[in-house]
Amino acid sequence: MTNSLPSRQTRAANALRPVRITRHYTCHAEGAVLIEFGNTKVLCTASVEEKVPPHKKGSGEGWVTAEYGMLPRATHTRSDREAARGKQSGRTQEIQRLIGRSLRCVFDLSALGERTIHLDCDVIQADGGTRTAAITGAYVAAHDAVSWLLAQSKISRSPIKDGVAAISVGIVDGQPLLDLEYTEDSACDTDMNVVMTASGGFVELQGTAEGVAFSRKEMNALLDLAEKGIGELLQAQRDALGL
Amino acid sequence: MTNSLPSRQTRAANALRPVRITRHYTCHAEGAVLIEFGNTKVLCTASVEEKVPPHKKGSGEGWVTAEYGMLPRATHTRSDREAARGKQSGRTQEIQRLIGRSLRCVFDLSALGERTIHLDCDVIQADGGTRTAAITGAYVAAHDAVSWLLAQSKISRSPIKDGVAAISVGIVDGQPLLDLEYTEDSACDTDMNVVMTASGGFVELQGTAEGVAFSRKEMNALLDLAEKGIGELLQAQRDALGL
Amino acid sequence: MTNSLPSRQTRAANALRPVRITRHYTCHAEGAVLIEFGNTKVLCTASVEEKVPPHKKGSGEGWVTAEYGMLPRATHTRSDREAARGKQSGRTQEIQRLIGRSLRCVFDLSALGERTIHLDCDVIQADGGTRTAAITGAYVAAHDAVSWLLAQSKISRSPIKDGVAAISVGIVDGQPLLDLEYTEDSACDTDMNVVMTASGGFVELQGTAEGVAFSRKEMNALLDLAEKGIGELLQAQRDALGL
Amino acid sequence: MTNSLPSRQTRAANALRPVRITRHYTCHAEGAVLIEFGNTKVLCTASVEEKVPPHKKGSGEGWVTAEYGMLPRATHTRSDREAARGKQSGRTQEIQRLIGRSLRCVFDLSALGERTIHLDCDVIQADGGTRTAAITGAYVAAHDAVSWLLAQSKISRSPIKDGVAAISVGIVDGQPLLDLEYTEDSACDTDMNVVMTASGGFVELQGTAEGVAFSRKEMNALLDLAEKGIGELLQAQRDALGL
Amino acid sequence: MTNSLPSRQTRAANALRPVRITRHYTCHAEGAVLIEFGNTKVLCTASVEEKVPPHKKGSGEGWVTAEYGMLPRATHTRSDREAARGKQSGRTQEIQRLIGRSLRCVFDLSALGERTIHLDCDVIQADGGTRTAAITGAYVAAHDAVSWLLAQSKISRSPIKDGVAAISVGIVDGQPLLDLEYTEDSACDTDMNVVMTASGGFVELQGTAEGVAFSRKEMNALLDLAEKGIGELLQAQRDALGL
Amino acid sequence: MTNSLPSRQTRAANALRPVRITRHYTCHAEGAVLIEFGNTKVLCTASVEEKVPPHKKGSGEGWVTAEYGMLPRATHTRSDREAARGKQSGRTQEIQRLIGRSLRCVFDLSALGERTIHLDCDVIQADGGTRTAAITGAYVAAHDAVSWLLAQSKISRSPIKDGVAAISVGIVDGQPLLDLEYTEDSACDTDMNVVMTASGGFVELQGTAEGVAFSRKEMNALLDLAEKGIGELLQAQRDALGL
Repeated sequence: MTNSLPSRQTRAANALRPVRITRHYTCHAEGAVLIEFGNTKVLCTASVEEKVPPHKKGSGEGWVTAEYGMLPRATHTRSDREAARGKQSGRTQEIQRLIGRSLRCVFDLSALGERTIHLDCDVIQADGGTRTAAITGAYVAAHDAVSWLLAQSKISRSPIKDGVAAISVGIVDGQPLLDLEYTEDSACDTDMNVVMTASGGFVELQGTAEGVAFSRKEMNALLDLAEKGIGELLQAQRDALGL
Repeated sequence: MTNSLPSRQTRAANALRPVRITRHYTCHAEGAVLIEFGNTKVLCTASVEEKVPPHKKGSGEGWVTAEYGMLPRATHTRSDREAARGKQSGRTQEIQRLIGRSLRCVFDLSALGERTIHLDCDVIQADGGTRTAAITGAYVAAHDAVSWLLAQSKISRSPIKDGVAAISVGIVDGQPLLDLEYTEDSACDTDMNVVMTASGGFVELQGTAEGVAFSRKEMNALLDLAEKGIGELLQAQRDALGL
Repeated sequence: MTNSLPSRQTRAANALRPVRITRHYTCHAEGAVLIEFGNTKVLCTASVEEKVPPHKKGSGEGWVTAEYGMLPRATHTRSDREAARGKQSGRTQEIQRLIGRSLRCVFDLSALGERTIHLDCDVIQADGGTRTAAITGAYVAAHDAVSWLLAQSKISRSPIKDGVAAISVGIVDGQPLLDLEYTEDSACDTDMNVVMTASGGFVELQGTAEGVAFSRKEMNALLDLAEKGIGELLQAQRDALGL
Repeated sequence: MTNSLPSRQTRAANALRPVRITRHYTCHAEGAVLIEFGNTKVLCTASVEEKVPPHKKGSGEGWVTAEYGMLPRATHTRSDREAARGKQSGRTQEIQRLIGRSLRCVFDLSALGERTIHLDCDVIQADGGTRTAAITGAYVAAHDAVSWLLAQSKISRSPIKDGVAAISVGIVDGQPLLDLEYTEDSACDTDMNVVMTASGGFVELQGTAEGVAFSRKEMNALLDLAEKGIGELLQAQRDALGL
Repeated sequence: MTNSLPSRQTRAANALRPVRITRHYTCHAEGAVLIEFGNTKVLCTASVEEKVPPHKKGSGEGWVTAEYGMLPRATHTRSDREAARGKQSGRTQEIQRLIGRSLRCVFDLSALGERTIHLDCDVIQADGGTRTAAITGAYVAAHDAVSWLLAQSKISRSPIKDGVAAISVGIVDGQPLLDLEYTEDSACDTDMNVVMTASGGFVELQGTAEGVAFSRKEMNALLDLAEKGIGELLQAQRDALGL
Repeated sequence: MTNSLPSRQTRAANALRPVRITRHYTCHAEGAVLIEFGNTKVLCTASVEEKVPPHKKGSGEGWVTAEYGMLPRATHTRSDREAARGKQSGRTQEIQRLIGRSLRCVFDLSALGERTIHLDCDVIQADGGTRTAAITGAYVAAHDAVSWLLAQSKISRSPIKDGVAAISVGIVDGQPLLDLEYTEDSACDTDMNVVMTASGGFVELQGTAEGVAFSRKEMNALLDLAEKGIGELLQAQRDALGL
């Protein structure tokens, strides 16, 4: 099971893996995007539903929510199917809550009207960074769903206020790296997932010391890398959307 | 969401939809096949695990089992994620049991040794016939996993005794049709899934009258269609495998 | 734990086991039938509920649905209680879906009006053929529930369009047999469950090769046996109902 | 749905309903008893398993445990199937714990050896008093299972130290009554379930004031009734067992 | 982990452990009581909700219900967290049903109006008698919630008809004892939980022989002890409430 | 339900709420700490178990893990009991995973030996900051459990490598604040939880923009506040432990 994409040997510490965004990857969903960060491949679909969850009923506002899943053999070793086990893991729930919050942050829920956009992020193949790929791809899928709503005259102006994208950064053997692959992610001392808007603000920041605690200085180095990478991802989104 | 593949208007009653079999679709699994029956797309992975379920422990025999899932937006309308709901539907269980039985039928479990081949069939996009596509694709994935076992010298001869493939047939407006698309499947009076081996025997036969009961004569017409279609699928499998 | 009923030694290959149908077996349900196929005993109750599931609300149509269960020690070895385990097995779900479809096929749901008939099929003692006994008994229970609805003037004409019954057939040591007992079922190469209407059509056909695949010719021999057996079961139902 | 058995109009306040105990009601279990208290019918099976739960492993002692269930239409109104709902109700758990404790109280677990007797009490038809009928019938089934163990020479002496039976008593309109039927149970102010051994001691006593609290004097009247009824039940058990 | 409170060495057979009732133990609930029976500490909160469960909707009546839980390390050995295991044990359900019934017995549900009082009894530290402490403390919490409802003018008169308290009694080495500690509870032959109203009636009585069955005479001795203890608990409640 | 503790009106933007740490709060656990951050009260127990989870078996290393729960009425409005609902929320799982990771970061798992320390953090009363109070209190409980292990000579040197504590910071109306109360937490634009070691490194950093994204400069202001607060918490831990 070899991997023909560039690995860190040929990739700079501050370089992203090749990013590919394929819209209309499946035919039924209002938005359907396959996003690839190197060998990581996540299918992000956006589905419009003409109703809202109980806490939004009658509010005039809509809702944006996400679910995350991984095909059992998306990884090196097969993992149990969550549907068969009868529950989602804590990790899965953590990730889907993160995706939902990140996307809601760039949505004007009043402008969406009382409807829900469901973002389903399913990992077809995993090689590190699935949650950041999911956020970055879900934005494009959500954008397509919004275009569909506009085309259908269900809304008159876009509820999307800003762009959003995400990347992982980490410290491996003392070296700050952008966009960790699986082997780097496993080996790293510190792992940080960063979500930023197109206008330059932070939406989510989750840093974890796997072994050794990290210093303020290291964190700043990581944020510099993240800002650079997210800038490139935002451009890739715009390119894919033809904006 | 248009569909540019040939529909029944341009397809004969006894014609399959275009069949495409892509091996090595993902990089981690021992077998990883994307199979397409027209717009229906199923990812079938085969994972080798060096242990067996309790009822086979110490038997010297292996096991072949299948799980089936559908991405929430593989269909026209988004369906609930089974992992989030906390259980697999009766339909899902029925299908994965069918896939498992069909594949075990062509396996010599002693020759496999005390290990398990897990077949995960995940529907990326659905347009009718997902279970028959899953069986047909799972065979190719299982074949790749067996080749891997042979290459690794974990087994000395193939445990695969025969080929196996499956197709749906049905009666729509009194007309027997091969390989039903979703719209045909919804409209049909009788729906039959047929699983056959390369040597010409039936492995599974599941016929259901949706409205009007069907006659012995109608059943024979359906089986004729199924035999023709399965012959073509078995050839497509051999072509894909370079046999 | 001996079995004094005639076994295959004294029973012809094309003979049913003794069939007994006892109506009013319990006192609360609108229909309550104990059906016996030899040592297999299934209690089938029909309960009328004056509401329908969500997908039928406001349709003017009713619903017919079935649930299946097996008492833990209905079998040779005690099996876990599904209520205690917290879920129904795939086998249970498969069977109850089959019973529901089979019965709905002979019902005019409009004539039933917006109400549900619940068919509960609980196996008191198992010796092969529980699902076919359940379908055959459930028909009689449903008929009694319909008579009750007519007597109560809740409906003015019977929604039952046709009779329905079911039997298993199989090939054991190359010999096609009607109405398999447990020991035959365990030993058989091919097992087929056939559901037919009184007017002679097929409603469900589920054939499975347990070991060796079966030929078209073998299938025809099995269907001949099934047609004979189902004819006798339909007569036993009419006798029990005094029709 | 009429009830042809004697009701309280023709039954004395201190009279049991007709008790019927049918052994060998089903053919597979080591003990299989249908017990009837008037219209209440409970099938009690005893299954021997040659292993014990974790807390008894290696102790040299056996275990006796019970499970309780009610067929969905054992009652006037159909209740949900616990297996389908995915969990047992608090009432079910309370009852099966009571049955288990009551039976263990008359068992010498060392004499049983490291094996388990599972008592499955399934209510076929309910008309009040199902838990007391279950205990009374389970004793007979357990006795048959012990006879089977002795006959198989798996044990050399009976682990049963004493007889045990149970009855309900209650106060309806100020009147203490023995063996409450469903309509009485619904109407009663106080409901008490009493479990006693053949040697005259109390094993379990569960009294509940449904509306008005009950006095010490009322309780004594109830216990007098219970002692009388349990005496008769113990005799019915001995008659059924031919002791 | 020593215990500085008086143990049975210095406590008479008919003496309660020191009882302490602390109102307003937490700040959010309408009633929030920490009750201590020696080392047993239970936090009982009463929460008012302005709706009722389905079976009371439109009845004009309210509902009183209880839930019970134990912190994982309230006991000598850590027990699994029920929320993590995904279900409440039979014991937990039994206890919370008992608490609910006991409290409802002293409530005039019409006077409460269509609202629910939820009683949450969470064991902070366990040393025997948690369920009786819970009932006794829940009464005080419910009383505070009622005072709050009166103060808010949501009701015009108290729906509380009577006081209620509970205690355990048991026979250890032939000696009837009041208010069992954990070590006594583990060692006892008979264990009885008694719930009584202030006006002197029994609400619940649950006696269980752990080993040897108990006689009528022993039961009477236990009830004498219970009546004495409950009298003292009712006084402690009144003192705490300043009545 | 008033709150007599100092609110932000009288508290500086960079001031913690009063911190109280009570050791030996319950009597059974090896460590049992009640920690209070103002009105937030969390009971943290540490339980030693002489076995490890499967992934550590035979590794010679121990494990430190955490579970988190909230009593139903710890909050303003009663929330459903997770044990009754049958599953832990995503929020609960997220928090307990955070606590576990934070504590493991300061543990030398080899020095712990093959045993597990379970940290149970149960919120008795909530007013914002429960997860940071839980981490800070769990450290003290874990320290007590380690002292117990040393006193029992089960280990010869402490596996605790460093101190650890946590605090929340946030931006409310443009103002960076330390240690958010519930009303502040609900109103804030950005909420950040920071976990640091005594030696000054970051262990976990979780920042979330609730509405407006936050800038690098704002994040630096928040981290300054967090460092100050955590310094004070580490001192409070040392004081409580008498170090």
